[in-house]
Amino acid sequence: MRICDILDQKKRGHALSREEIRFFVDGFTRGDIADYQASALCMAVCINGMTPEECADLTEAMANSGDLVDLSSLPHTADKHSTGGVGDLTSLIVAPLAASMGLSVAKMSGRGLGHTGGTVDKLASIPGYRVSLSEEELLAQVKRVGVAVVGTTANLAPADKKLYALRDVTATVDSVPLIASSVMSKKLAAGAESIVLDVKYGSGAFMKTADDARLLARTMNDIGHAHGRRMAAFVTSMEFPLAPQIGNTLEVEEAVKILRGGDAPGWGIRTVAVRLAAEMVTLSLGTPREEALREAEEHLRDGRAYAKFLEWIAAQGVDVSYIEENRFERASAVRQIPAWTDGYFTAANTEKIGLASCLCGAGRMKKEDDPDLSAGLILHAAPNARVDRGQPLATLYAADEQKLDAGEEMLREALFFTDEPAAEIPLIADVIR
Amino acid sequence: MRICDILDQKKRGHALSREEIRFFVDGFTRGDIADYQASALCMAVCINGMTPEECADLTEAMANSGDLVDLSSLPHTADKHSTGGVGDLTSLIVAPLAASMGLSVAKMSGRGLGHTGGTVDKLASIPGYRVSLSEEELLAQVKRVGVAVVGTTANLAPADKKLYALRDVTATVDSVPLIASSVMSKKLAAGAESIVLDVKYGSGAFMKTADDARLLARTMNDIGHAHGRRMAAFVTSMEFPLAPQIGNTLEVEEAVKILRGGDAPGWGIRTVAVRLAAEMVTLSLGTPREEALREAEEHLRDGRAYAKFLEWIAAQGVDVSYIEENRFERASAVRQIPAWTDGYFTAANTEKIGLASCLCGAGRMKKEDDPDLSAGLILHAAPNARVDRGQPLATLYAADEQKLDAGEEMLREALFFTDEPAAEIPLIADVIR
Repeated sequence: MRICDILDQKKRGHALSREEIRFFVDGFTRGDIADYQASALCMAVCINGMTPEECADLTEAMANSGDLVDLSSLPHTADKHSTGGVGDLTSLIVAPLAASMGLSVAKMSGRGLGHTGGTVDKLASIPGYRVSLSEEELLAQVKRVGVAVVGTTANLAPADKKLYALRDVTATVDSVPLIASSVMSKKLAAGAESIVLDVKYGSGAFMKTADDARLLARTMNDIGHAHGRRMAAFVTSMEFPLAPQIGNTLEVEEAVKILRGGDAPGWGIRTVAVRLAAEMVTLSLGTPREEALREAEEHLRDGRAYAKFLEWIAAQGVDVSYIEENRFERASAVRQIPAWTDGYFTAANTEKIGLASCLCGAGRMKKEDDPDLSAGLILHAAPNARVDRGQPLATLYAADEQKLDAGEEMLREALFFTDEPAAEIPLIADVIR
Repeated sequence: MRICDILDQKKRGHALSREEIRFFVDGFTRGDIADYQASALCMAVCINGMTPEECADLTEAMANSGDLVDLSSLPHTADKHSTGGVGDLTSLIVAPLAASMGLSVAKMSGRGLGHTGGTVDKLASIPGYRVSLSEEELLAQVKRVGVAVVGTTANLAPADKKLYALRDVTATVDSVPLIASSVMSKKLAAGAESIVLDVKYGSGAFMKTADDARLLARTMNDIGHAHGRRMAAFVTSMEFPLAPQIGNTLEVEEAVKILRGGDAPGWGIRTVAVRLAAEMVTLSLGTPREEALREAEEHLRDGRAYAKFLEWIAAQGVDVSYIEENRFERASAVRQIPAWTDGYFTAANTEKIGLASCLCGAGRMKKEDDPDLSAGLILHAAPNARVDRGQPLATLYAADEQKLDAGEEMLREALFFTDEPAAEIPLIADVIR
């Protein structure tokens, strides 16, 4: 088998065989196939696509390129994954909520990049939280507590890691087969039987339309099904941030509010978290959907989810008095932005809101950046809410005035007001099973 | 300007601007743009194509990446280029023939690779021939003698050289815009006002059909016209080798025979050489086509072309008694292949004939190989000729029996016989002006 023949096949729009895909992934991981050959293949895939079989084979080969986490000793293993958004702190709620309902949640999460936040950064903002556990520690904790969330290890789907780094610098990121295979290779390797996906679309998401997100959702579901996993994929709006508080500590604080039975009225976070957790329960335990939803609501209301949250983070090294006594830290420089107009907050460039938080210091513009865990922003107006000129619209938190300036400038480009309220955009456009 | 944006444009099938193409070529030549980015662009071009403007801009940028030979001090400069074939020794005849008719031929030629031979290797088989001249020596010789043929210098279109090496290992060679730009970048840099192309099609050529060759011919003509050159492109058959003798010394010998007024009956070499030289004269001097053809025939017949050939190679270091006394060297191991059947020699896999010569030692399977200048083969039956079982069909020349075995095995797969003669394939399918 020769890599040039494989490139030639894909260039001509033909499907690659399982053996050809394995040959490529294994050779690329070992370094026998050069970056310039892999990038040419990625470009050909971007333009000519891949069949469902090719996607399943590529995902499997990338999953098998590194360690496969063996969760078979745990009951009812379930995972969830969001394609990334702004104020998308669902994992912080879903993981303990699902665990409180009897599932085993051994979750590996990524770090944030660009305008999107990462669960691991949010958790790392809790003093004492250990984002790295050995596989033994991970399994033991999930067996005992029902939940553990760690950063992805270096040897989880290393082929995907290497290929993604290459795609990032060759304009070959935006390919549904490549995105789907990338996400699912890590999910397959992480070992859960049931996987619930949250595929975001809109101004703050990678997929700009609900239809694009549906296609990605179906492609990922198909991959999971091909490898014997129980799958469901939500298609949810990222036309606005999911929650009003954006930033690492700020999002933990928001999660804690909801886990204590609160809500962020007008924002999507609570609804999406409940739906995702309920879906995991339905997939894993076969609980009817309505019943699973009622149960999830109950576990949030009566404190069982919050208790599980505290148990989880305590197991992972946190002195939970930090949470219980609300000792959340705020960045030293604070700026309130008053509304500069009267009107309804009917549209947002959510990517720019995410970037504003990032410019305040909360995120990474480059992979090497170290996020300021206490930086970020709070929006005081919910989607479609009425604002009056001069009322507090947002508060920015950063380490210094310069960062506040940069964040404010970006934020001002991101919020749009009209004289009339807009028709409501459904938060959940679709659930694909 | 960012390379990823350029890649993204081409991925989406959009045309690149002149500035974007320059940015790519300059950055790639300098090493600021990585191989993995350039290969992704080549793949996108292979699949999505390029407009005539993009081809012209890419060619110009690659030509400008290195030295531009200034031929402006010479009258009636003309160049010729073949896309490569087997037994294609036309340059050895055309260069002195055109010079004998008053043109200035300052030609830079390449080395052979795979089944195709290279003019520089053929010339290097003449003892004493200097394939490297300084630009001053080149210009002075052409001014004095009318012709000089040298190897391409390292700094002639270095961007093309670098890009071609990358295309070779990423299955991105077979793209008309990339092939056309590659050829024409070197022709533009080499400086001639008039350029006659010989675009080969058929079993021994890169382009398998006359239509593919026409498309390449038109694309190259358009590029030349866009840069103010006088252009003509022949589309000629490589369904059979162009001449019966294949190999380096063997082809020089064949050229000398024709320059002395001889012919290779049934083979295309003489016709194509005369047509190409006449076309160069028509383009350069405006001589009517019929008259230029008559003149070229006359110069071959009356020895003026041969005299120019001797003058040329003498100027480039050769003791011409080698030629005049026919002291051509033959490889030590010789094998005659008798016809294994009765019939008409109606079809050939000309690529395999070229490879047979290559396996005898005459060519390069890899760039690093050193060709055996005296190796090769002679076909004793012309296209469509009648052969009787047992009559001499071919003679192979190599350094040892093992090479003869390899060459023979390949040659036997390359020649096809039928009971009836076939309809004649026109040698020259088209001339595009």
